[in-house]
Amino acid sequence: MKKKVFFLAVGSELLSSKSNRYSPLLAGKLFSLGLSLNGELTVADDLKAIKQAMAFSAEKADIVIVTGGLGPTFDDLTRQALSDFSRKPLVHSSSIEKFLKKRYKLKKLPENFLNQCLALRGAKLFENFNGTAFAQVLQARGALFILLPGPFREWEPIWEAGIKDFLKKKFPAGKIMTAAYRLCGLKEMEVQKKAEPVMKEHPSASFTVLAGAGICEFSFACRNPEEFKLMKRKFSMAFRGYIYSARGLTLAEELKKACDASGLSLCAAESCTGGLISSLITDVPGSSSFYSGGVSSYSNHSKIKLLGVRATTLKNKGAVSEECAIEMAAGARKIFKTDFSLSVTGIAGPGGGSRRKPVGTVCFAFCSPEKTFSTTVFFKGDRQRIKNASASFALFEVLKLVQSYNQWRNRKGSAKEKK
Amino acid sequence: MKKKVFFLAVGSELLSSKSNRYSPLLAGKLFSLGLSLNGELTVADDLKAIKQAMAFSAEKADIVIVTGGLGPTFDDLTRQALSDFSRKPLVHSSSIEKFLKKRYKLKKLPENFLNQCLALRGAKLFENFNGTAFAQVLQARGALFILLPGPFREWEPIWEAGIKDFLKKKFPAGKIMTAAYRLCGLKEMEVQKKAEPVMKEHPSASFTVLAGAGICEFSFACRNPEEFKLMKRKFSMAFRGYIYSARGLTLAEELKKACDASGLSLCAAESCTGGLISSLITDVPGSSSFYSGGVSSYSNHSKIKLLGVRATTLKNKGAVSEECAIEMAAGARKIFKTDFSLSVTGIAGPGGGSRRKPVGTVCFAFCSPEKTFSTTVFFKGDRQRIKNASASFALFEVLKLVQSYNQWRNRKGSAKEKK
Repeated sequence: MKKKVFFLAVGSELLSSKSNRYSPLLAGKLFSLGLSLNGELTVADDLKAIKQAMAFSAEKADIVIVTGGLGPTFDDLTRQALSDFSRKPLVHSSSIEKFLKKRYKLKKLPENFLNQCLALRGAKLFENFNGTAFAQVLQARGALFILLPGPFREWEPIWEAGIKDFLKKKFPAGKIMTAAYRLCGLKEMEVQKKAEPVMKEHPSASFTVLAGAGICEFSFACRNPEEFKLMKRKFSMAFRGYIYSARGLTLAEELKKACDASGLSLCAAESCTGGLISSLITDVPGSSSFYSGGVSSYSNHSKIKLLGVRATTLKNKGAVSEECAIEMAAGARKIFKTDFSLSVTGIAGPGGGSRRKPVGTVCFAFCSPEKTFSTTVFFKGDRQRIKNASASFALFEVLKLVQSYNQWRNRKGSAKEKK
Repeated sequence: MKKKVFFLAVGSELLSSKSNRYSPLLAGKLFSLGLSLNGELTVADDLKAIKQAMAFSAEKADIVIVTGGLGPTFDDLTRQALSDFSRKPLVHSSSIEKFLKKRYKLKKLPENFLNQCLALRGAKLFENFNGTAFAQVLQARGALFILLPGPFREWEPIWEAGIKDFLKKKFPAGKIMTAAYRLCGLKEMEVQKKAEPVMKEHPSASFTVLAGAGICEFSFACRNPEEFKLMKRKFSMAFRGYIYSARGLTLAEELKKACDASGLSLCAAESCTGGLISSLITDVPGSSSFYSGGVSSYSNHSKIKLLGVRATTLKNKGAVSEECAIEMAAGARKIFKTDFSLSVTGIAGPGGGSRRKPVGTVCFAFCSPEKTFSTTVFFKGDRQRIKNASASFALFEVLKLVQSYNQWRNRKGSAKEKK
């Protein structure tokens, strides 16, 4: 039976100004032990609130990981709370005292250090290499409590040096297999519809769908290796044509891999996305290997002057037209001297829409060494959503274009070899 | 008696891969209503777990704000959980159906839309302007439950348009005055240090600090109008030189206001920020009034060919140098024909650093009709943080430049009038 794990974060600052960013980090560490996080609670530096949260967690979970509230000041109350909850007294630990004296080269500990020498009777202690608070592990009222200091730079090394192996021994992991598909071009509901038949055939597996603007992530987990293989095959078929990554990469990261594989280069000409595509691409470390740069062209003047769009195109067809998109992409490819180029021009709103070209109308063009093509998509949502969805669409289209170009080159290459 | 508020976030992704970053945002919104967040729970998309968390929250808090789990897919279970917990049935709401039909121009709703028409009997409904899930408010077993859709861009507008006033009426706070300063160039600890003397002089007021990459928001609330005025004066002094908005606007929004005031125009040349600045500026509706566009220049070729950077500058000083930044900014200003320009070139990492120019070294240049200046800043953090902090810095510098140019023009104008 899989053990349930709760994460209890103690600290008033986490309820006012600070985000608790530890959950995904902790989840990652638990995952590699075959464990997963089943719940998270955050409470203020308040003795009663901490005790209530401990009681709730101990009732629902087998392991309760607590961070924070182990410092030397008046509002550090985690030790006291667990002492009250577990009915184990806090006792002076001479081994902690000895360690702290040695670490800080002190003959006598100052008064506020004495707090740090208090241990729950029966607790297993773990040294802190980057602070004064030891980690303490105690079985209490049905759950294993792991008390860790608050800062990541303190608890993480303690975890790696001791807690990890302790948990591994205590809860040997069963094997769990997981896979995730990142999809572009499907709404959350469409993903579900495509997945449903497979899900119904595998009732013991578990599933999640995570939606962004224009993209979705579908994941599943399963314990049977044969079933897992079969499900992977089925889902690959179900999502065919929409998968941009089956290895947890972003669109831009997949694009870098595809371009780097054949030493191909890319540039972008952006109007309504205004630099977003360029920024997403350059979020990837080392993106200069394939990305030469882009122009975000927010005026007719710059479209004409920089990208070489013809004034007559703007006059007759408008800036939001496939004709303009094609000239933008071709112009960018010429000035950046790249193999591929993409362009986006559209109406992100809230103003600027018309009956024929409503807000959300976005024209795209793509150039490769072989061909140029253009398309128009109508997106829904606010300005931010239209920008994001347009960027995802453009990146996915150019990714597919580069991938099919790579395949074509490989076929040509192997055909030549045969000759 | 002050009401206790719990925040319950529903979503398996928040226990595996994603951080829950809503707590500080929600805390800020509650703050202005004289309420504060007393606890936070995150649970998976699991019916039993959601119900248990609801029971725990209802026992400890007066108001329970729930986000997530209101979508149309199999793993959206929040409505069902509250129905079970409150023993109120889910009933088909013809008003929601009517609304969704109209919004999506459908004669008949598809099957998975029908889920979205289910309302808890007796719940007060709030329209969602950016999605299909209505917000629902229901008093159940001692607590007021507020169910909101998961994505910030969906729940935030609902909050502002309806929930806020609803809570204000239900829990009148008395008059509370709040002010917020958005600051650039100070770390969270530096903000606290500057604020501390004033905070100590006003122990009955409350304070929060919300930190981003390179920017911070400091807010305070107070009930006495005289004291409030006095505090505003004191904080304006304490944060002098670091405030970019005292009216809740983003850097780009303030920049638009400053440029539009005198009909000034701007362009950008970006290397390490790779289009991020351009994207932030064009997030503002109507930004084409002042922003002509930008070049994200990720290769030496494009720096030379497009921006007119001299090959000798790149060779002798390197792409990451104030000399190169100046030539980039001057070149961009020339091709886009704008009044102002900015440029950024630096090392965002993780690779590319050296002893003399470590990762985080970023050079900036700014051109106005009167002058050009450049500077170098050393940022800390990962690639994303360096990009974000660089973008904030550049936008703040150019904002100050435009503002002082406006002042200078006004002085010149009024001097002329006097003549």
